[in-house]
Amino acid sequence: MIGARATPRLVFGPSVQPGAQSGKRMLPEEVAVALSFNGTTQAVMMATPEDLVDFGYGFAQTEGIATPADILSVEVETLPKGRDVQIWLAPEAEAKLSARRRTMTGPVGCGLCGIDSLDQALRDVPTAQPSAFRMTPAHVMEAVASLPAQQRLHDATRAVHCAAFWNGKLTLAREDVGRHNALDKLVGAMVRIGTSPAGAVVLTSRVSIDMVQKVAMLGAPMIIAVSAPTADAVTLAESAGITLIALARSDRFEVFTHSDRILEESHVR
Amino acid sequence: MIGARATPRLVFGPSVQPGAQSGKRMLPEEVAVALSFNGTTQAVMMATPEDLVDFGYGFAQTEGIATPADILSVEVETLPKGRDVQIWLAPEAEAKLSARRRTMTGPVGCGLCGIDSLDQALRDVPTAQPSAFRMTPAHVMEAVASLPAQQRLHDATRAVHCAAFWNGKLTLAREDVGRHNALDKLVGAMVRIGTSPAGAVVLTSRVSIDMVQKVAMLGAPMIIAVSAPTADAVTLAESAGITLIALARSDRFEVFTHSDRILEESHVR
Repeated sequence: MIGARATPRLVFGPSVQPGAQSGKRMLPEEVAVALSFNGTTQAVMMATPEDLVDFGYGFAQTEGIATPADILSVEVETLPKGRDVQIWLAPEAEAKLSARRRTMTGPVGCGLCGIDSLDQALRDVPTAQPSAFRMTPAHVMEAVASLPAQQRLHDATRAVHCAAFWNGKLTLAREDVGRHNALDKLVGAMVRIGTSPAGAVVLTSRVSIDMVQKVAMLGAPMIIAVSAPTADAVTLAESAGITLIALARSDRFEVFTHSDRILEESHVR
Repeated sequence: MIGARATPRLVFGPSVQPGAQSGKRMLPEEVAVALSFNGTTQAVMMATPEDLVDFGYGFAQTEGIATPADILSVEVETLPKGRDVQIWLAPEAEAKLSARRRTMTGPVGCGLCGIDSLDQALRDVPTAQPSAFRMTPAHVMEAVASLPAQQRLHDATRAVHCAAFWNGKLTLAREDVGRHNALDKLVGAMVRIGTSPAGAVVLTSRVSIDMVQKVAMLGAPMIIAVSAPTADAVTLAESAGITLIALARSDRFEVFTHSDRILEESHVR
């Protein structure tokens, strides 16, 4: 199975069934993946080695480096130590990226894609464009309830994140050991197809500021997350015009920002 | 409460108690934290703004930049956009770091602390030193069971990670919105005090390669994690001589590597 590997283990404890002490468990694979733009490595991340072309398009989009119109090709090379996702940009896009690189001085930081200052960590993101997209509470709960059917790799390993897109139903889903990677792969799949972002990004993971930044760069007006947000992710979603729903279950969810996109007629009050 | 903020929200769903539809939820704070060595920013991460001096010592240790003997002082400056953790190194350590910086060319990557190549992502780590440290299955389950009492911030928010240290009992614990940060803070607290690493690092989070790398840089021979490891984290723990226990509950756990540190007399077989 791509993305997972059966790994031997021993089981201990009074609750362990007799005969179940040894055996194997399917665990997710984790591979070093370099993202290179016109031959220069921009970032290296540990990721699930699947949907890497989507990953390239998505990372370029959510980090504001390039949209599909700027991208000539994306090729994935398998190397002894990992994968190299080679993104080739059109000349104008390359010139823009080069200018951005020249502004970096000294060793640049990590964790937030090559940034080197507090200013860049809290970069400005576009505000969600007006759209007619709305959801009823029943639809929000349906979106959460239909997520497990998309989680092929999580079914096997119980240990990867999923990012999916709802626009009347769940239309696309991507998985990865990293929650940022799963979202970038989803965004990449969407921009390659040309899916309108007027819908909801559905996440299994927690919502931190950088997840909201990436959704804003996609242009989607709504996030539905199974786990909790940070207080500062809520602040950013508010200012970026994004409806942030979190702690979402099949029978309950919480809305932190822009609740006007939840249709009133079914409002439980 | 440091590290958490009450945030307004609306609750929806058929399972919602009457009267519980609005109100506030405590959510973790997330602040941009720069780590600077002798005045130059090495990394910027989103983190919980607590125990930042520990964070500075721990990041220096686990990334192989400096040990406490190399560090003259760590100061935390509060800036409008976040915090700057300023680590000041002795001259020899600074020279070593400068040499390392000169080998970086072009923009360096993210996600793995300023690395710019697949080689660096899979850096060599030291093998755990021989020690007499052993645990019985009962102690492993006791370590997991005693973790919640250390999770002050998680109690309030249900949304942060914890890293703790067991050497006969849980002696130290640190929390953060990021699992790597929680581990770095724990390591920093330990090396500042001079705690022997002959014990088990207890984690609420998933175990990826970079978590095993950091524990190896601490020198601890055992990891006990509540969540799952990746297959490649298991491979690294095997080669680094670290006992990797995961999916650990108060009544059950799984051992993936070096099970000889689990005492035989209580072996459930």
